[in-house]
Amino acid sequence: MAGAQEGISATNQQFMQGFAGGDAEAIARCYTAEAQLFPAHSDVVSGTAAITAFWQGAFSLGYTGARLETAEIEEHGDTAIEYGTYLLSAGHAKADRGKYVVIWKNDGGTWKLHRDIWNTSQPAE
Amino acid sequence: MAGAQEGISATNQQFMQGFAGGDAEAIARCYTAEAQLFPAHSDVVSGTAAITAFWQGAFSLGYTGARLETAEIEEHGDTAIEYGTYLLSAGHAKADRGKYVVIWKNDGGTWKLHRDIWNTSQPAE
Repeated sequence: MAGAQEGISATNQQFMQGFAGGDAEAIARCYTAEAQLFPAHSDVVSGTAAITAFWQGAFSLGYTGARLETAEIEEHGDTAIEYGTYLLSAGHAKADRGKYVVIWKNDGGTWKLHRDIWNTSQPAE
Repeated sequence: MAGAQEGISATNQQFMQGFAGGDAEAIARCYTAEAQLFPAHSDVVSGTAAITAFWQGAFSLGYTGARLETAEIEEHGDTAIEYGTYLLSAGHAKADRGKYVVIWKNDGGTWKLHRDIWNTSQPAE
């Protein structure tokens, strides 16, 4: 069984690859079956189908890349808490930068995102 | 030593009372000494002085009340993860509603906010 650090890094790689490929289903597979997203300007997004649709929506807005950078991981048994920063791109432009907190669960040996909240660090328009 | 549920509820009460009284220092005392806020449109806010200044800034924007509602608490020893929703008011108006994730630490018997991230659930303007 992979340690949290290693397992989270592997899943984040999958997430970024899925994002680069515009593959919302691949991204949704990085989440637990009971996962929830907490996006800004939205109510809570719960479960695989809604999470897939959410990321599909991001692609239709023109996002083409996500870079996730882990700042810190706290491990608590089968749960881990990750703090990090993200950079979203749209074509060659930087579209957004911000920070996130992800609650991870060890799901049968694979670390998956269970709760995912983020917000922009860019100034309000 | 208070259980996480009870301790978090007590600190959230203090937070809301501090908010209603416009008392940023009382709010800052709800956080650990190494706490960090992750507000939207801002970089990470670290430590007691910066956290006090942040909430002071919220009062100068006209916010007069915060209602925090816990949806779920996960306890992991001296750490707990809280998911919840907030309602901010400004005078008698509802100014904002959203959701939050707080990582709590048992700090010598008192549960204190350690990492605090939230975002609005209102539609983008």
